[in-house]
Amino acid sequence: MGNDSSNQMWGGRFSAGPDAIMEAINASIGFDQRMAAQDIAGSRAHAAMLAATGILSDSDAEAIRKGLLTVLSEIEGGTFQFSTALEDIHMNVEARLKEIIGEPAGRLHTGRSRNDQVATDFKLWVRDQFDAAIEGLQALIRALLAQAEAGADWVMPGFTHLQTAQPVTWGHHMMAYVEMFGRDVGRFRDARARMNECPLGAAALAGTSFPIDRHMTAQALGFDRPAANSLDAVSDRDFALEFLADASICAMHLSRFAEELVIWSSAQFRFVTLSDRFSTGSSIMPQKKNPDAAELIRAKIGRIFGANVALMTVMKGLPLAYSKDMQEDKEQVFDAADNLMLALAAMEGMVRDMSANRESLAAAAGSGFSTATDLADWLVRVLNMPFRDAHHVTGTLVALAEKKGCDLPDLTLGDMQSVHAEITDDVFGVLGVENSVASRTSYGGTAPEQVRAQIARWKEVLG
Amino acid sequence: MGNDSSNQMWGGRFSAGPDAIMEAINASIGFDQRMAAQDIAGSRAHAAMLAATGILSDSDAEAIRKGLLTVLSEIEGGTFQFSTALEDIHMNVEARLKEIIGEPAGRLHTGRSRNDQVATDFKLWVRDQFDAAIEGLQALIRALLAQAEAGADWVMPGFTHLQTAQPVTWGHHMMAYVEMFGRDVGRFRDARARMNECPLGAAALAGTSFPIDRHMTAQALGFDRPAANSLDAVSDRDFALEFLADASICAMHLSRFAEELVIWSSAQFRFVTLSDRFSTGSSIMPQKKNPDAAELIRAKIGRIFGANVALMTVMKGLPLAYSKDMQEDKEQVFDAADNLMLALAAMEGMVRDMSANRESLAAAAGSGFSTATDLADWLVRVLNMPFRDAHHVTGTLVALAEKKGCDLPDLTLGDMQSVHAEITDDVFGVLGVENSVASRTSYGGTAPEQVRAQIARWKEVLG
Amino acid sequence: MGNDSSNQMWGGRFSAGPDAIMEAINASIGFDQRMAAQDIAGSRAHAAMLAATGILSDSDAEAIRKGLLTVLSEIEGGTFQFSTALEDIHMNVEARLKEIIGEPAGRLHTGRSRNDQVATDFKLWVRDQFDAAIEGLQALIRALLAQAEAGADWVMPGFTHLQTAQPVTWGHHMMAYVEMFGRDVGRFRDARARMNECPLGAAALAGTSFPIDRHMTAQALGFDRPAANSLDAVSDRDFALEFLADASICAMHLSRFAEELVIWSSAQFRFVTLSDRFSTGSSIMPQKKNPDAAELIRAKIGRIFGANVALMTVMKGLPLAYSKDMQEDKEQVFDAADNLMLALAAMEGMVRDMSANRESLAAAAGSGFSTATDLADWLVRVLNMPFRDAHHVTGTLVALAEKKGCDLPDLTLGDMQSVHAEITDDVFGVLGVENSVASRTSYGGTAPEQVRAQIARWKEVLG
Amino acid sequence: MGNDSSNQMWGGRFSAGPDAIMEAINASIGFDQRMAAQDIAGSRAHAAMLAATGILSDSDAEAIRKGLLTVLSEIEGGTFQFSTALEDIHMNVEARLKEIIGEPAGRLHTGRSRNDQVATDFKLWVRDQFDAAIEGLQALIRALLAQAEAGADWVMPGFTHLQTAQPVTWGHHMMAYVEMFGRDVGRFRDARARMNECPLGAAALAGTSFPIDRHMTAQALGFDRPAANSLDAVSDRDFALEFLADASICAMHLSRFAEELVIWSSAQFRFVTLSDRFSTGSSIMPQKKNPDAAELIRAKIGRIFGANVALMTVMKGLPLAYSKDMQEDKEQVFDAADNLMLALAAMEGMVRDMSANRESLAAAAGSGFSTATDLADWLVRVLNMPFRDAHHVTGTLVALAEKKGCDLPDLTLGDMQSVHAEITDDVFGVLGVENSVASRTSYGGTAPEQVRAQIARWKEVLG
Repeated sequence: MGNDSSNQMWGGRFSAGPDAIMEAINASIGFDQRMAAQDIAGSRAHAAMLAATGILSDSDAEAIRKGLLTVLSEIEGGTFQFSTALEDIHMNVEARLKEIIGEPAGRLHTGRSRNDQVATDFKLWVRDQFDAAIEGLQALIRALLAQAEAGADWVMPGFTHLQTAQPVTWGHHMMAYVEMFGRDVGRFRDARARMNECPLGAAALAGTSFPIDRHMTAQALGFDRPAANSLDAVSDRDFALEFLADASICAMHLSRFAEELVIWSSAQFRFVTLSDRFSTGSSIMPQKKNPDAAELIRAKIGRIFGANVALMTVMKGLPLAYSKDMQEDKEQVFDAADNLMLALAAMEGMVRDMSANRESLAAAAGSGFSTATDLADWLVRVLNMPFRDAHHVTGTLVALAEKKGCDLPDLTLGDMQSVHAEITDDVFGVLGVENSVASRTSYGGTAPEQVRAQIARWKEVLG
Repeated sequence: MGNDSSNQMWGGRFSAGPDAIMEAINASIGFDQRMAAQDIAGSRAHAAMLAATGILSDSDAEAIRKGLLTVLSEIEGGTFQFSTALEDIHMNVEARLKEIIGEPAGRLHTGRSRNDQVATDFKLWVRDQFDAAIEGLQALIRALLAQAEAGADWVMPGFTHLQTAQPVTWGHHMMAYVEMFGRDVGRFRDARARMNECPLGAAALAGTSFPIDRHMTAQALGFDRPAANSLDAVSDRDFALEFLADASICAMHLSRFAEELVIWSSAQFRFVTLSDRFSTGSSIMPQKKNPDAAELIRAKIGRIFGANVALMTVMKGLPLAYSKDMQEDKEQVFDAADNLMLALAAMEGMVRDMSANRESLAAAAGSGFSTATDLADWLVRVLNMPFRDAHHVTGTLVALAEKKGCDLPDLTLGDMQSVHAEITDDVFGVLGVENSVASRTSYGGTAPEQVRAQIARWKEVLG
Repeated sequence: MGNDSSNQMWGGRFSAGPDAIMEAINASIGFDQRMAAQDIAGSRAHAAMLAATGILSDSDAEAIRKGLLTVLSEIEGGTFQFSTALEDIHMNVEARLKEIIGEPAGRLHTGRSRNDQVATDFKLWVRDQFDAAIEGLQALIRALLAQAEAGADWVMPGFTHLQTAQPVTWGHHMMAYVEMFGRDVGRFRDARARMNECPLGAAALAGTSFPIDRHMTAQALGFDRPAANSLDAVSDRDFALEFLADASICAMHLSRFAEELVIWSSAQFRFVTLSDRFSTGSSIMPQKKNPDAAELIRAKIGRIFGANVALMTVMKGLPLAYSKDMQEDKEQVFDAADNLMLALAAMEGMVRDMSANRESLAAAAGSGFSTATDLADWLVRVLNMPFRDAHHVTGTLVALAEKKGCDLPDLTLGDMQSVHAEITDDVFGVLGVENSVASRTSYGGTAPEQVRAQIARWKEVLG
Repeated sequence: MGNDSSNQMWGGRFSAGPDAIMEAINASIGFDQRMAAQDIAGSRAHAAMLAATGILSDSDAEAIRKGLLTVLSEIEGGTFQFSTALEDIHMNVEARLKEIIGEPAGRLHTGRSRNDQVATDFKLWVRDQFDAAIEGLQALIRALLAQAEAGADWVMPGFTHLQTAQPVTWGHHMMAYVEMFGRDVGRFRDARARMNECPLGAAALAGTSFPIDRHMTAQALGFDRPAANSLDAVSDRDFALEFLADASICAMHLSRFAEELVIWSSAQFRFVTLSDRFSTGSSIMPQKKNPDAAELIRAKIGRIFGANVALMTVMKGLPLAYSKDMQEDKEQVFDAADNLMLALAAMEGMVRDMSANRESLAAAAGSGFSTATDLADWLVRVLNMPFRDAHHVTGTLVALAEKKGCDLPDLTLGDMQSVHAEITDDVFGVLGVENSVASRTSYGGTAPEQVRAQIARWKEVLG
């Protein structure tokens, strides 16, 4: 819900009752009951503060505290009856509290509004998602580090444009994703720190004349401080949008990796074998083993980024402060968070289970003239040829090899010298795939020693 | 589901079982059970055709027919036990059918696959949404026509840039939305006609060697013809994307109208009074009456267009034929369709219930120099002044009126002539708001006679 | 521009001049000069109508007509000086007209406004894009038909989940895209018909009191009729949004095909060879031949759908009638249209130039147990086994073949009968790839005869 | 460009030349020339490092250094001839360098590739945009602080649902935007720190065998460190996506403020007067003064978020490492950055120039029962009524006032007591708007003292 409206609660002002359409479009209890624990935690912190500041008597506060725990226990136990007529989680909880403790329940809403209440509930919920995403990413990074460590020196083709470019190592390729998911962790961390300000006590939009202590409730709920402007506090959904933006970039990374896994699992590539746990068969083609989990992970960017678009569209051009449009925020974030966590867990599982086909990788790495760059670099380094000239000579040699139906290492020295007379036998030393990979020792390069150095650094980072 | 995969059904090939994560990401029964009626209709048509072509014995076909009706009745009666282990609606139905009728159930899947089955189910579901959207739009258009008819000659300010521009009529403004929603009807109709080709019989992707009759199943299910390419038939989700695109444009129209209703309901405008049925009060501010329904309608474009983005992102770059990514199609369309229908119904209800505040509208129409254009046009028409010069003279008169703190009709003839000597008394005849509106008789203009002509035309269109 | 505002033209009302920032954000001449021809066509039609209805003298109309042709000739000749201070194409044209013909130029703006003028210009421009898109699609379809015809019976693997599923024909695969692009043609055609209503004469928003003939201008400009509501006519951008939505779906189809071409060009697949014209080399790796054109086409969906999102976001929640926000419409549509046409042309060129590697396709088609479904179907057809049982038997045979390291046709009859005793020699007749493909004769199936029938149908459709 | 491909540079491999379509879709020099300064800075740092590590002779390095400065000077002076046949900025610069210095130019490309070169250029360009956005935001915040300071105690209506809710202060409302734009600054800062790793030396994708010093080039270009994985370094566009995501949220804030300015400028609200500098007139309605700048700012979220969608769509599912699809990154970011900076500057100008209409604000603040909450709070505080009961009593009093056609302070004590007998004269003390505002002293509340405290805090933050 997150607003100051209620069809049922407003006392004596309206004559006509809401009809079914209005209830259907207006009620949020169908989804915001997921924030029950957060709602009750917020109310408990609020009640404790009201007592500490003398706004509420100790006995009322104690009754409320106990009552709320009862409500929580009913919800967790599955015996709570949610009511659509009560619209939202806030009203459902408060109405039940009143049934349990009577009159003091009516004093709980002092110095607050549903506007700051829902903002607080939702922030608490989203904050947990930041933590869950970070945890999920770290588990995935650990799975990738294990793959990288096992295959730090396994050669495979490095592609650009899905064409064989230069040999790289399996470990190096895995570590590229470690970098991506590592940046995702950073983004979620920064956003979590930024959003950790408490809206509670902003009331409807203007603050309150009750002598509340907002620092106290902020601290009780694990926030770093109270939000500094009450109008902003109830109108702000940046935290949700930033979660969705970060989740979208993370889902983009997942989609790239998933795409590779799908391609690598094809009969034509055979670079990896996915475990049966994360594959499925076919209802009509008995021979099929399909990389369903990878495909579904690849697709998740759709709904996660779709949620980002949805909420951004909702917020576009909304005047301050709370507008009911903002009730559309929760379902988008719930769905995106659920699917992000699922995709992270599924990817972690797949990475843990998958086997690289070392022989296929090596065979592919050695074909396609993949060491042409090494040859060109040799011409530069040993013959002091300008790179652009070396590039041209190498191109001619590749064309020659193609014509002869062989690869570069299979050319004779005579072949070589027919294109450039100064080439010596020494050149064959750089044409092997293992040599090529071992030579790429620049910082962050694909040489196994570099890969192992990065694995070590990341292990330290993760602790 | 919509694909050829099943964790449970594939017979003898896999050793390891799927774990919880895989089940969570892979199973679709949680949402695709909404297509149960479509799935059973498709199976019944398929079985009847198999019998007619001699592929199935009449007794098997009859057993299947009766069995499927029993399953449908169980689902509609709420007694059916959906199983996640059976993954999707197709497998749930077939497994239950087998329990009921035994061996013949295993013959139903002859000459088809889950790929064409899900495409058929989903098309049937989406086709109903096209029809529902058209119906919802027509009801809304009728409500707008009623408003337009009642206020065909009520004057109100026409705005550009939210600044008073020229007087228009209430009816004219309502009819602008009739045009928009009328185009929406056209879009939905065109798309429905385009999508009405039956995928059933495309099988997994290549067609089948069984002598099936695809025209027969197409006809039985209300399709215009079978889809002409089996690879395309199982890979195509254009119908869903076109529904989402059309729904997005429709939701954009709704958002514009809703924005106006929110602004018009403000204390500053007071152009309309929304009914209590479609408004709510506040939990903290007892005086509030909030246009919640309008705000929620305004927001619905977010999730509807978000769904469009989601599915477009999923489909981007998918190779043929079916990929599991496409399983992400249904939830997006289900949610967008539900919310579109709800928004249309809520808007229709609001329009039926709302009262235009005729006096406020008229008062606003007459202020803000709204007839300045009429004055300029008079200068052109009567004094034969070029429009650009007339515009300049009028601007000077507006500045003069502003300085004197009055509106244009309150200037004296002397004031007028001090700016341009040839102006005569006759000019005051065009400065009244009613005169202004009545004079705009160009086709589609705001003159009441034009508005009434358009109302009549639309009534005829709707029949 | 498309609005009723001008920093420079408004005569005597404002004192302060616009500064550089305002000019930068406000002026549209930097991009709307692309609509010069449309603007002048609209003005010519308007002037002719003003003369025909007696609002303008014949001599003024003739002066305007000649003057506009001079302006057009200057613009086409590249000698026209566009001025940012004059904001937009409308004012630039009119100001130059005044220099050329003097006073009558000031009479041209009678009975119209920049609001209806820009809507008309933009509609004319977008209408041309619908035509161009249809033409580009038809050329692409012709190129696909040529590929399909040449390879109507070439076998290749049909994939689901990028796993070999069943053999299909090259022609069948090409024809799947013909279906997609054919639907795109239908969408563009429907939208073009819907948008073909003329806004001219709607004036600022209310119509006009001059006795204009909107049917006459509509006809002169090739519209089917005048737009029926003047408020809607100046506020409507549906035609641009529908163009962007249709273009997005078309770009999605292109992205799928481009993805396949990239994968098919890899060393691991080698299904197609793209021509050198549509490939590039590498600045560092002399052996590379990259499918750049396919990748760029794959990417175009980004900016085209981005434009759709952009304009939908702009239009969300805009009150009637014209708001300046709508000036953001043109650059999005210009860019999307340019890139769609470019992508269609590049795809057509690639398809015309590319060679299918028939041997690679055939070899791939025959591996991966691709005829397992044919075996299962044989069990159903000949042994009258329920499909689900046949599926299980086939799965066991696939597992056996996999264990023996051979494919299905390489199993002995003894192997077969060890799994199911009733299998006879006859089964080997359905295991060949060519047999498999030839047997899929259901309507729209992959059998060459079906493919050729669809080619013939499409040739007739294209005429 | 950003890739390893060139139509012209690849030496001896290809026979067919590219045609016009390929050149049109492939060449990037039309837009990437904006990165000329970055490209030359990167090359200078690279050449200096090649010399320091002995890979290049000092004399070659010096020739390159001088030559690059000449090229830069030609570009900045506008005399450089960009060539489409040379495809991109990298090749244009290098070709010209060769013309100037001859053979050593061919040695510059040692140990790098266009893949790391374009990533470096683009990162340098985007990094400047982060800085520019932060600067633009700080200027805007300063303008808001000036408005807030001037009107720290001016009363105005606080709205929820665009309905008058409670009185707030002008300063408080301005400060809400300071909070939003302050979060934007934080987001841009975090992202800038995250992206500041140097791709140079990643070469095509695998690193290089030349003994380059990546820390040296990183430092020379102001990066914090070299990127740690060469595959990731050339495949990563997170920095561009994070810029677009942050810019989108910022644009959303701008759209909300712009929406308020448009509404506040209407004749019905009259809350602010925008300066003539940021308004325009009408070509047809001489009386109009339109808030064009506000509308255009409101619309900018469209193209900025559209760019975000565009690039996210492009990156979805791309396998490693560089694919040509990624060439679509630059135009999106260029356009989004240009428009964000323009929107920030225009908003700053508007805020500096605009005048709040203090009387209109105060009058509106006092109407609409805006102190109903104060009355309810009084009942709680003084009569110790539970809030829910107080809410009900107040609702009844509002209904009574509405019926009598007056506001709450105009009710008599008798009226009050007729609803609740214990109400005393003391209640009238809280019903005044000034009292209401002054009483909201909770942290972050609307009381002038709270507003001034926040202004002071922000001034300190900005320094």
